[in-house]
Amino acid sequence: MPTSENDSPPVYREIAEDLRAAIASGELSHGDRVPGENDLMKRYRVARATARQALSVLINEGIVVAIRGSGVYVRTFRPLRRHGPRRLSRELWSTGRAIWQADAADRGFETDSIEIGNVAAPEHISRALGLPAAAPVLRRCRRYRLDGRPMQLATSYLPADLAAGTAIGEADTGPGGIYARLAELGQAPAHFTEEIRVRMPTPTEVDRLHLSAGTPVLDVLRTALTAAHSAVEVNEMTLDGSAYILQYDFDA
Amino acid sequence: MPTSENDSPPVYREIAEDLRAAIASGELSHGDRVPGENDLMKRYRVARATARQALSVLINEGIVVAIRGSGVYVRTFRPLRRHGPRRLSRELWSTGRAIWQADAADRGFETDSIEIGNVAAPEHISRALGLPAAAPVLRRCRRYRLDGRPMQLATSYLPADLAAGTAIGEADTGPGGIYARLAELGQAPAHFTEEIRVRMPTPTEVDRLHLSAGTPVLDVLRTALTAAHSAVEVNEMTLDGSAYILQYDFDA
Repeated sequence: MPTSENDSPPVYREIAEDLRAAIASGELSHGDRVPGENDLMKRYRVARATARQALSVLINEGIVVAIRGSGVYVRTFRPLRRHGPRRLSRELWSTGRAIWQADAADRGFETDSIEIGNVAAPEHISRALGLPAAAPVLRRCRRYRLDGRPMQLATSYLPADLAAGTAIGEADTGPGGIYARLAELGQAPAHFTEEIRVRMPTPTEVDRLHLSAGTPVLDVLRTALTAAHSAVEVNEMTLDGSAYILQYDFDA
Repeated sequence: MPTSENDSPPVYREIAEDLRAAIASGELSHGDRVPGENDLMKRYRVARATARQALSVLINEGIVVAIRGSGVYVRTFRPLRRHGPRRLSRELWSTGRAIWQADAADRGFETDSIEIGNVAAPEHISRALGLPAAAPVLRRCRRYRLDGRPMQLATSYLPADLAAGTAIGEADTGPGGIYARLAELGQAPAHFTEEIRVRMPTPTEVDRLHLSAGTPVLDVLRTALTAAHSAVEVNEMTLDGSAYILQYDFDA
């Protein structure tokens, strides 16, 4: 029972489809200039409004970016493969490496802003950590950059009494980061849950992540649990959706 | 080193932030009417253009939906939790249940369109399945609905010689679906890889998934591998991003 959708699409969609195919095939690749309104008007014998509409479709899809006064270009960024299970394996943080080093082995990944302090836990955080309402938690807000471009906001919460007096409350958490410090406290993470949602960014996120039009964000909410299934950290991450491929491997 | 972003935001952003907070707190919940332009003009003493801009921010974020001639409403759909590892566990399909039954136990999940046929494998598919270029593959294209609403497009590819003469090529693949049939052939999936990307939809996808403005899609590319790590199926899925929460659990 194939569906029938045989109405012929409007011309601007056909033009957009041609350009999309040229990008998918690699004929136009990252950073290439896409034919402009004048080129499209000549090539397809259409009005300027039609050419503009075709380009708008691709801009709104986020596969090309308009640069004012210059033209329209195929997106230039190589996405980062974020491998869920492998990047959080114990071998990694127990040998003193930062988790994000697994994502971006040979690329310039860095924290460019960090704010640390104790706060009263927001409701969903106290619930996730199994704490009383508004219990004190240590909050760490960071922004990460890759190749100089901001691409992730992350806010971790840990029970304040667990973190007190450890490097977990410092800007530099030491070799292996938070998880290695938790292990030293006998609270090593053994299980993780990641929940992924996708949505359009708020204006504040557009600013902080320098997002161009047509770029959704990924919300990744990670809970780290000990072997005894007690939650020791919740990390709320917001990722530039154009910058990431998330990968998860698991068994049947 | 906290970042300083102290410029006071434009009024329309503040109004949008108020409405967003009302939705986040549950004061306005799914299906509620959001204050209209006239309400906002009175309440905030702003011009119509400012009120409209505030509502546009939320519409573009996809957290409210404008219904022509009626008003603007908080999104009414309860997202579907799609639990990666659990839904693909062998216990599930080996006992004759369909995989999507794990997602939507008590809800009306159904296939409403299916197209099946042999094709020459597209390049990325022959590569993923370890087949020669343009090798014959069985392709199954489906659309899924939940509560009457289309929410997922899925196209599976399997080596044509593997599927030949089995129910894998039928509209009804029988109890436990494709994976149970593969198991009967001694080719049971043992490992899965899922790759997740996010992007704005193409116009065709907007039509087929009935997407409203500000709704991104999730691309999930799943490869099913046997215990001997031979790829037996690749499934390219496109999910309505507003309809899903993806969950993955794994160990450190």
